[in-house]
Amino acid sequence: MTLHSPTTTQTSPIQEPRPDSALSDQPVKVVVDVMGGDDAPDVVLEGIRRLFASTDPLDAGIRLILVGAADAIEPLQEAYPERIDTVATTEVIAMNEHPAAAVKQKKDSSVVVGCRLVKEGRADAFFSAGSTGGVMTAATLIIGRVKGVKRPAIATVIPAPRGSVVLIDAGANTDVLPEYVLQFAAMGEVYARGVMGVRHPRVGLLNVGEEASKGSQLAQDVYALMADRIAGFAGNAEGTDLFRGSFDVIATDGFTGNIVLKAMEGLVAGLFGELKTIFYSSTKNKLAAAVLKSDLSALKDQLDIEAIGGAPLLGLAAPVVIGHGSSGAFAIESGIRATATAARQHIPELIADAVAARG
Amino acid sequence: MTLHSPTTTQTSPIQEPRPDSALSDQPVKVVVDVMGGDDAPDVVLEGIRRLFASTDPLDAGIRLILVGAADAIEPLQEAYPERIDTVATTEVIAMNEHPAAAVKQKKDSSVVVGCRLVKEGRADAFFSAGSTGGVMTAATLIIGRVKGVKRPAIATVIPAPRGSVVLIDAGANTDVLPEYVLQFAAMGEVYARGVMGVRHPRVGLLNVGEEASKGSQLAQDVYALMADRIAGFAGNAEGTDLFRGSFDVIATDGFTGNIVLKAMEGLVAGLFGELKTIFYSSTKNKLAAAVLKSDLSALKDQLDIEAIGGAPLLGLAAPVVIGHGSSGAFAIESGIRATATAARQHIPELIADAVAARG
Repeated sequence: MTLHSPTTTQTSPIQEPRPDSALSDQPVKVVVDVMGGDDAPDVVLEGIRRLFASTDPLDAGIRLILVGAADAIEPLQEAYPERIDTVATTEVIAMNEHPAAAVKQKKDSSVVVGCRLVKEGRADAFFSAGSTGGVMTAATLIIGRVKGVKRPAIATVIPAPRGSVVLIDAGANTDVLPEYVLQFAAMGEVYARGVMGVRHPRVGLLNVGEEASKGSQLAQDVYALMADRIAGFAGNAEGTDLFRGSFDVIATDGFTGNIVLKAMEGLVAGLFGELKTIFYSSTKNKLAAAVLKSDLSALKDQLDIEAIGGAPLLGLAAPVVIGHGSSGAFAIESGIRATATAARQHIPELIADAVAARG
Repeated sequence: MTLHSPTTTQTSPIQEPRPDSALSDQPVKVVVDVMGGDDAPDVVLEGIRRLFASTDPLDAGIRLILVGAADAIEPLQEAYPERIDTVATTEVIAMNEHPAAAVKQKKDSSVVVGCRLVKEGRADAFFSAGSTGGVMTAATLIIGRVKGVKRPAIATVIPAPRGSVVLIDAGANTDVLPEYVLQFAAMGEVYARGVMGVRHPRVGLLNVGEEASKGSQLAQDVYALMADRIAGFAGNAEGTDLFRGSFDVIATDGFTGNIVLKAMEGLVAGLFGELKTIFYSSTKNKLAAAVLKSDLSALKDQLDIEAIGGAPLLGLAAPVVIGHGSSGAFAIESGIRATATAARQHIPELIADAVAARG
């Protein structure tokens, strides 16, 4: 491993929380795993080029450390010497490797090296569209948790026409205790406020009915905790609420969260597939569909979970965002931007604060 | 309560299983709760009229006992004296009443009386679009479980373009043990074969990944049981599989099942709502949408969970089907037909057999 040009600006792991700060344009350094994703490294490199082509002043302050194969990262570094540092790595954690074993064995993998750069304070945050299990394991072991956080959790922003919702946990923890889910809710609330810009997030508990007495014993226990300790608690959310805009944050265990998220992804993909079949089924349909095309594409883009750019892993000492394996260049661009925003908004520090306040 | 003309054909609670019988046209008597559903009794009466207008020979053998307010049921009985008996009732269990208390107190409610008619052998099966909790509680207490069944479960047929899937449990049991879910799978398999006509159902376990080692401790334990004792076990199903046609039956606990079902219902409704907005947003869109209208309506109907007509409550000594509260007349018609089919196919007897075979 060769660190080509390490940044000298160190970031202290815990800073003063700034709950009311607007989106900041302060300089930020994000490690990007160039080897992560089904179409890596090309799509990752393209996503970075897109980000650097942006004229948004917020984007201008984003600097990157690229980790990955030397021949993939060096040309881009030469093209943007002011904004890119590189650390060449020789290994990759594949999508279907056992995460714990892979992280342990592949010390020179892009994911392990990327996390280490953050841990050492050479960068502020980490983005990868690689193996979710691999990134989670490496980030938890190397970067470590925020003090007081029992279990890091995956937050996913589900886009919906009437308002997006942060679903947490979307798959990190399949077996949970009530206090874990309470923390998921608290972390989701911080994220919705800090990154999504929702001033007073309405926080719900995913359950099978509205009343406090509904649901599993776990859900009832979590309800009692959330009612007591989450300021924005707005009661139980049902499955239908995931697409209704009635909540900003919906907390659940990672088993339910992962299944419901994949069901929704599958349904959106399946429905648009069926629409496409209808549109191509006859000449008159083709002509009619052509008229509607731009509006339908806009809707599809709006609902595209991938366009959000990635799922933040909350509860770690530095922001880590995991992109979808099938990310396109736009998803990569969005994901890096979301990672930078999480760092600028001091999400880990705000989470430390939120967790401490709730015991 | 007045029993106008009780049927004299008694049904023995356990009959010989007939796993390979084709859809039978044998006479069958279904109790229909005329007071159940948001638009009851009118929509229920209309659904019955639709069913009786059918020229399908299978439908000709369906006779009904209507339970509900005298003024609602008597005119229809007079119109179809050969096919309808009536039992007037004076009470109704409302959608938001506490089920156990309501069933205990309202002895002359349509749901309680309907279940009693089945228990007494005066009818073969019960259909209601009333309170799910009320019907479940009354049916379990009055009709009773199949011997060996630990927990009755709600099966829901999720329609999808590439093949429907029976999701079980869709909400009856929020806290489960591994052996309950094993039985849900076995009951779902019987239903898919007997009522859906799938000869060799592919049975999956809803989980967060494909491998046996994935998921919660509960899911891992269920996986081991299913692999051992469900002939058609096809491994773990992920959320995306609910709409992919890759499984005929997907077993899960009632907490996860209910949430994922409502999420899918909400998403379908929300997406078609968005499409409608697009179609009405301009004159040119309106014209284009008019061309596509019939194909899109067909797709919407195909995906309409309500069109399935109701969710069977499996594991009871007689078939009980719960219609969606918002059922229209077509859903009522389909629901009564599905109830009759479950009785003709001897689903409770086949479930007794399946449960006994699995210990």
